[in-house]
Amino acid sequence: MEQRVSLITLGVTDLGRAKRFYEALGWTSGAKEADDVVFFQAGGMVVSLWGRDQLAEDSVVKDGGGWGGVALAYNTNSNEEVDAVIEEARAAGATIGREPADTFYGGYSGIFIDPEGHPWEVAHNPRWTIEPDGSVTLPKG
Amino acid sequence: MEQRVSLITLGVTDLGRAKRFYEALGWTSGAKEADDVVFFQAGGMVVSLWGRDQLAEDSVVKDGGGWGGVALAYNTNSNEEVDAVIEEARAAGATIGREPADTFYGGYSGIFIDPEGHPWEVAHNPRWTIEPDGSVTLPKG
Repeated sequence: MEQRVSLITLGVTDLGRAKRFYEALGWTSGAKEADDVVFFQAGGMVVSLWGRDQLAEDSVVKDGGGWGGVALAYNTNSNEEVDAVIEEARAAGATIGREPADTFYGGYSGIFIDPEGHPWEVAHNPRWTIEPDGSVTLPKG
Repeated sequence: MEQRVSLITLGVTDLGRAKRFYEALGWTSGAKEADDVVFFQAGGMVVSLWGRDQLAEDSVVKDGGGWGGVALAYNTNSNEEVDAVIEEARAAGATIGREPADTFYGGYSGIFIDPEGHPWEVAHNPRWTIEPDGSVTLPKG
């Protein structure tokens, strides 16, 4: 198994609301109005939105009903970009779990929670560089 | 907000066990024995393992205790690769939620569930090509 992820699927209870939320953040997809799944090209991988019940059945797991131990992060190259993304998320209707502030690891981050309860950390870690293509490479050693 | 994800963090209750599981799949990290977080470079992004309690607190969410509406997928260019990855996961101690089989969308997939309950679909979708660098690009239109 190569060291990579092709697709992250976020289970949703209201697909239209979730799609509008990510579109309000500036994301675009080729999804049509009647589609029951939305695929966003996200760098070299894909983020999709799909019915949470269908996803649980397809993934052969029992839905715990709340958050289940997975968090996403969006890293930036500056504290100012963190502030800007958190403001975009707030304007799009996200819950701001944590306002941007310095972190224990010497970075700066805030948390927004999408309308379906999926948390995103928006972070500037000075040791992680975001390349012009949006990719992240871990520092060596 | 650009259309990308920098980091997926999988919350774990037993970091050593989770780390050994992903290492048994062939993944490598620079983590040292005493580290309380493990970062895997995964293509242009990062997959990390961190204590589930810490992740819930940091993400400002209440832990539902089970699965919470997120699934990962690993796409391949052939059915045979799907079979091979599912066998690797089985050998590494995963629960096989669903044995590889044809899917409703004309592909072929199986599900493995890691020791912490996080499901992965291993899929061959003939309309999605995996590039030599491991990236996935959605078909147009």
